[in-house]
Order: sequence, then structure tokens, then C-alpha cells
Amino acid sequence: MHGYRERESERLADQAGTLVELLHGDTSYPAGAAVLEAGCGVGAQTVTLAARSPDARITSVDISEESLAAARARVEGAGLANVELRRADILDPPFEPASFDHLFVCFVLEHLPEPAAALARLATLIRPGGSVTVIEGDHGSAYFHPETAAAHAAVEVLVQLQANAGGDALIGRRVYPLMVEAGLVDVHVSPRVVYVDDSRPELVDGFTRKTFTAMVEGVREPAVESGLVPAAEFDAGVRDLYRTAEGGGTFSYTFFKGLGTVATP
Amino acid sequence: MHGYRERESERLADQAGTLVELLHGDTSYPAGAAVLEAGCGVGAQTVTLAARSPDARITSVDISEESLAAARARVEGAGLANVELRRADILDPPFEPASFDHLFVCFVLEHLPEPAAALARLATLIRPGGSVTVIEGDHGSAYFHPETAAAHAAVEVLVQLQANAGGDALIGRRVYPLMVEAGLVDVHVSPRVVYVDDSRPELVDGFTRKTFTAMVEGVREPAVESGLVPAAEFDAGVRDLYRTAEGGGTFSYTFFKGLGTVATP
Repeated sequence: MHGYRERESERLADQAGTLVELLHGDTSYPAGAAVLEAGCGVGAQTVTLAARSPDARITSVDISEESLAAARARVEGAGLANVELRRADILDPPFEPASFDHLFVCFVLEHLPEPAAALARLATLIRPGGSVTVIEGDHGSAYFHPETAAAHAAVEVLVQLQANAGGDALIGRRVYPLMVEAGLVDVHVSPRVVYVDDSRPELVDGFTRKTFTAMVEGVREPAVESGLVPAAEFDAGVRDLYRTAEGGGTFSYTFFKGLGTVATP
Repeated sequence: MHGYRERESERLADQAGTLVELLHGDTSYPAGAAVLEAGCGVGAQTVTLAARSPDARITSVDISEESLAAARARVEGAGLANVELRRADILDPPFEPASFDHLFVCFVLEHLPEPAAALARLATLIRPGGSVTVIEGDHGSAYFHPETAAAHAAVEVLVQLQANAGGDALIGRRVYPLMVEAGLVDVHVSPRVVYVDDSRPELVDGFTRKTFTAMVEGVREPAVESGLVPAAEFDAGVRDLYRTAEGGGTFSYTFFKGLGTVATP
């Protein structure tokens, strides 16, 4: 049992590695660079960011003290010394103009009612010529086999809940126009597809089951309370999503990663 | 004007090149290999296949004499001498078992009511250890910005028309399980995303406008006659799809390419 658990935890680490590589494999900052991570939450991306750029100085901010405490524990647990965690409102950030070299914003714009304006504001904190990296998912990019109306309806509930909260769960496809609207130049956006079939058992378990479907299942209470969907229909959709992780199923989801440059005035 | 047209035709050639590279860049067969292309249609893929494997012998079959005539003109126009075009029913192919080294099937299974059975039958024509390549699109992988219900409804009509004709326009996501069901081994499927934004003007015009949206627009008559959608709603959807090719729009579509091996008995 112990041996099994060891292998299991190695396997999960490998799986996390796959997704991390897909999203972050091409992001690293040079020695001495000052990087602002806006909206670090519990530090899930912070540790990857800091570990991949060991000689850069990462300033990670979030508005929630509770999240920052979790992020601090995670950063210390990873033995990273190049991260400063600080409480700040990313819509009104307490930094001087052009006081950072680079900006990193991951899974944050999806929650904001005015993402382009927020990004433009954050970009003023970056020196001209500095880079801006944006990563977002897009729940409308999720499709799967077997295909059922109930499964799609359950995903659609997530999109509606996010919209009701002022966000946009379909923001991935908008990353390019948002970055352009925010005034960035040389913008390049690339899709990062997580494609899952039976030949990729780590992703079947780690992504289809434990990331995406678990996320949908996790909003059951607000989904049903909101009246967006009857409980039985939502549950059927979640069951159908789990079904795509059984033999013969497939699952596809796309993240979008954008890289832009702060214009010289 | 003449200069402009020359540049325009270069540009369109470049664009075709981009998509060809995405789908076929990793397919080439060695000298002397006997390759069966099942369902060549008008030869759109045949010329790419033959040009990329100049020392392989390509046998391309289709059930339609009319399509074969178009394919013949295309192959001769490209000056290719390594293609044999032959009329055959791919569901009852007139070849000896194991008489080819490799099988290539592109945009064909989507039209068949029993794609796994058809693929299994075709695979008997390939020697053990030979390869099978399958390429299919998936209309359910299409999403775009701006997002509208009418645009999605127009795409859904295409899916329904294909289903009514016994096919499956969502087959891309099923390529892996279909190849396994057909008895192939070492199956690997990879998604090939065509992602389009304003920074990729060749794809805005060549893919969003002239490939995908033109394809949807092309089924207007059967779509409206079938009663699946009112004409005005379909037209609104097509307008909205063209809108995604205007400034600030984005478009995403995914093809799936599978590679498998014919098992040793």
C-alpha cells in the first residue's frame, strides 16, 4: 500500500508537470528582472513562476489575506526565496509607474468586469519594452466524447455563474483583442490544448476527472440555488462528464497564452 | 492591379501552405512504399501526399468517376508521376489482403455510418506493421469571438445535416477510440488547432472566411429546405460568422490526426 501510494504521488506529480509544461514551459525571466504577478491567489502559479526564474525577483499580489497566507505557505514549502508576497488591489495597485520589468497575469482577467481596462492599468506599472504574459482558459473550448446535452448544459451553468458574477469563462478566445485593446504591441497568442484519450491515463485522471469535472461538480450548490438548472439535470451532466473519463472517452480543453510588449511612449 | 493580383495569389498559396503543413507536415513515406489513399475525392490531399513522398507509390481510390477525373487533372497539373488513380468502393475494396504498406484516410470517415468497421476492413489491405493515418475535423471544436447563438445554430445545422446523411461532423474527437476499435495498435492522436486572430490575416481570410464560413454558407439551401432552421436565422448566423473575421474577432477549429499500426496476427 505504501509502495502504491509512493507511485501514485509520483504519477500525480508527473501529471501536474505535464500541464505546467504546457502552460509555463516557455516563460522564464532573466537574472535581476523585476516581475509583477497580479492576482496570485493561493500561489498555484507563483511557485512555478519563481522556480523557473530563480534569479528574477517576483512580486506576487492578491487582495485576499487568506489567499496570501496560503500562497506564503506554498512558497516557503517550495523553499523559494525570490518571491515577495504583498496585499494589493490589482485594480488600484500601490506601485510607481514603470517600476517592474515584466507582468504575469494568469487566470485573473476571467473574473473582472472590465479586463482590458484592468490590464491597461497594470501595464502602466511595467517599463516600456517590458513584457506582459496573460494566460486564460475558455470553458467553451471544452468538448468531449461521448457527447451529451446534459454534460454541455452543466458546463454552460459554469459559464452563466461566472457571467452573473461579472466575469467571462469564455475569455480565452478574447485574449488577443483584450491585449490589443489594453495598448500592448507585438501581441502573439497561442492556444494550448489539453487533449485526453485512453493513451494518456495521467490526463484522464488528472485533468478530465480531477480538474475539469471536479470543478463543474464543485459549483453544484450555487448552480442549483441559482435556479439555472434542476439538480437532477446538473447531476446527470456531471455523471456524463465523468463518463468521458471512462474507456473509449476523449476530452479536449484549450488554454490561451498571450505575450505582448509595453509600448514605448 | 496586376502586381496586386500576383501578391494576392502568393498570399493564398502561403495560406494553403500553412494549413497543409499543420495537417500533413509529419507525413511522408519512404522510397518504394505502397500507400493506399482511401477516398481521395477530387485529389485535394492526393497532390500533397504524393509531393511529400516522391519515391513512394500512391494508389488513390474513390467511388465517383467524376471526382476521379478532377483528381486526375489535379495530379497531372502538379506533374506528379507516382499516383495511380482507380475507381473503387472503399467499403468493398478490390485489393488483396496485406497488399499495401500504409493507409491514408483523410476527411472520409466523417461520411460513413460505420467508420470503425470500414477502417478495420481497409486495414486488412495493409501488411502487419504498416501504418494507418487518419485525419478528421470536428465541427463542435469551432468557437469564436464575438460569440453569438445564431452563429452556433448555423454550425449546428451542418452537424445535423451530416448526421441525417449517416455521417458524424463531430468525428474528430472520436478518432482515437475508432482506431482502437478498428484493431489498430500503438495509436497516437494529436489535435491540430487552427487559431485565427488579427495577427494572422492569411488565416482570417483563408480559413475563417473562405474555408469554414464559406462551407457553412454553402449548405444554405439544404439547411433551409430541411426545415432545420428558418432562412433568416441561418443568414444571421452566417453574418455573425463573417463578423468573427472582422477586426477584433477570433476563430478556433481543431483537426485530429491519428497514427496507428496494423497488428501482427
